[in-house]
Formats: sequence, C-alpha cells, structure tokens
Amino acid sequence: MPKAMRFCPDCGAPVEYRIPTGDDRERAVCTATGDIFYENPRNVVGCIVEHEGAILMCRRAIEPRLGFWTLPAGFLELGETTPDGAARETREEACAEVADVKLFAMLDVTHIGQVHIFYRARLVGEHFAAGPESAYVTLQREDEIDWPQLAFPTIHRTLERYFADRARGHFGLHVESLGAADWRAMALDREPTGHDDGC
Amino acid sequence: MPKAMRFCPDCGAPVEYRIPTGDDRERAVCTATGDIFYENPRNVVGCIVEHEGAILMCRRAIEPRLGFWTLPAGFLELGETTPDGAARETREEACAEVADVKLFAMLDVTHIGQVHIFYRARLVGEHFAAGPESAYVTLQREDEIDWPQLAFPTIHRTLERYFADRARGHFGLHVESLGAADWRAMALDREPTGHDDGC
Ligand SMILES: [Zn+2]
Ligand SMILES: [Zn+2]
Repeated sequence: MPKAMRFCPDCGAPVEYRIPTGDDRERAVCTATGDIFYENPRNVVGCIVEHEGAILMCRRAIEPRLGFWTLPAGFLELGETTPDGAARETREEACAEVADVKLFAMLDVTHIGQVHIFYRARLVGEHFAAGPESAYVTLQREDEIDWPQLAFPTIHRTLERYFADRARGHFGLHVESLGAADWRAMALDREPTGHDDGC
Repeated sequence: MPKAMRFCPDCGAPVEYRIPTGDDRERAVCTATGDIFYENPRNVVGCIVEHEGAILMCRRAIEPRLGFWTLPAGFLELGETTPDGAARETREEACAEVADVKLFAMLDVTHIGQVHIFYRARLVGEHFAAGPESAYVTLQREDEIDWPQLAFPTIHRTLERYFADRARGHFGLHVESLGAADWRAMALDREPTGHDDGC
C-alpha cells in the first residue's frame, strides 16, 4: 500500500488521519486548512507482444525483482491514455514499437494499491533491444517461459490466461484480483537464477 | 489535472519540480532528502444498472455538476477491486445492490488525469433510493434520458455505447479516450433544468 502522508503537500503543515464529515474512512486532513487529501490506487500498464508465436520478455535490470522476467509494463503517467502508456512502456523497456493494442486483462492487486492493465499488441518491424530498465530482451515461446523466474504474480497470471486463450483460439477479457496468497501459490523463486546472457 | 505538490508529504520540506536522472519528465523531488514523488491518474469506477429495460440514473446533489444526471460512479479506493468499487458506489449513491458486474467501458480522460471504468450490472431486488450524494434516483428508459442534462462526457459516451450495443444484441468492450472537445461536441447544458422531483 502507498506510504501514508505526514505533511500537507499544499502548505507543509502536519496532516492528521481522521474520518471527515460525510465520509466513511480515514483521510489525510491538513491541520492548518482542513483540506482533505485522497490516496488512490495506481495503474500499471503493459503489453503482451506476440511475434511469430513468441512473446517479448524483459529481464529486469532494476529493483524490485531485479534479474527476473517480466512483460514490458510500468506506471501510467498523467496525460497519457492506458493503451498509449502500455505502448510507451514497451518502447522504453524493450525498444519495440507496437500496434493493434487490445485490452486483455485488468488485474486488481489491492494489497499494494495497484491495478495492472495488460494489452495484447503486435510488434511493428522486427526491432527490439534492452532499454535502460532491462538487462536483456528476447522473444520466448510458451515452452521457453521460465515460470518460477517471472517477476510478479500478475505477469504469471496474464501469461497463463494468454496461452490458454490462444490454445482455444479465442482471446477473452480477464478481470480478476490477485492477492498476497497468489504469490505463494505460484511458487515464484526468491532469487533470480542469474545466468549470463552475454550482453 | 491534479494539483501540483508544493511540500514533501514525508518530511514537510519544499519540493522542486525537476527531471530526475534516468527519467524523462518533471517530478516533485524533496529538497531535503531527494525522494521523488510520482503523480498518477486516478480511476473512477461506476455501474450501468439495467432493470426491466431501464437504467438506474442519479441526479447529483453535490458539485461538480450539481443537479445533472449521472450513472452511479466515483473514485476507486485503496484496498478494493475495480468491480467492488463500482458496486460500492452504486450502493452509496443509489442505495442499490448489484450482481453480475461485467467490464463494459474504459475511458481515458487525460486532460483531468482520470480513467473512467464502467461495469454493466444487474439490480438485485427492486430497491433503490437517493444516497447522500444524490438528489433523486430513478430508472430511465432510453427515450427518457435527458442527454444535454447528463453530468459528464464519459456518462454520455458510455450510455451511447450501451444503447447501441443493446440494439444490436451484443455488448462489446469499449476502450477509448475523451478530451475537452468532446464536452463541447456533446452539447451538455451549462445549467441544470432544476425541476422539482418532489422528494
Ligand atoms: Zn495544508
Ligand atoms: Zn522530504
């Protein structure tokens, strides 16, 4: 969950947490002005890029989960749409251009205050490469995915759904929620295998 | 767009806006600790509740757009899923319980830093009433919708898509973005008609 606020971002006075009149949950309230500050979930947007039957995967060069595999994804920025954000993250992390982005999964991750939104997309051209947040970017077929070495449960769930839908010949839309227990159930490794990719 | 930050919510020192190393856009950075604060879009979640062919509509009792008509909707809270948030807003604003919520529309409203997410839902039981943020709640058939008196462009667009899909007998999924120009194009009224509902 995002860090609780201690000082008012408008005037610098301390905030206190209390339930404002007419509300039903605690909010950060400025002790100087009474202004209320709302803290809300953040969106993470990303792409499942398929090219010649394989999926564009990034090995993370940054924490958290440095050394683990992910789909290109990151926080939605102010001023951009969710599909544009997913395409931007793919450009930044995998140096790849995509088209035909279609909503595929929306996964609520309430214990960390996030919503993860994944789009299916087509690779434009053949180019991809590691961006600054990736150690290595490659296309992996389904049988090449190293499931315990995936970075996050939402990546695991999204790829599961993707391959299952592809096998039955129809891509659905997946709205579901993932909790802390899913991390354990998916048996993701605690340490990256750290093999050298020679790059 | 959300209000820019002036003081660090962690320590109360002033923040400055600059582009951190390795980033490509301005962020609020604490002048005391160098901590970076990210500002991201917020999700608004709501329901299109159909009952016996009519849609559950709320006349707003609060600003903005007091006196205009809306679908029950509001900001997603920390700790809840997007469908649960949509159901909660329907309970709060229309005193109605819903089931079978299905994702229908995700509308990016980048100029105000919001993503509006609407679910289709079924009314459970026959009960509904005005919650504290509503002046009046009623079921409206398509020919009873007062289009220029709708509160927001995303409500207008969502209802347009809903009735068009219903007419062709198939509900799709609508991912699109709405800008400031849509408000003008939709010719929403500037003032509510303010008729008395007798309640
Ligand atoms: Zn203040
Ligand atoms: Zn600080």
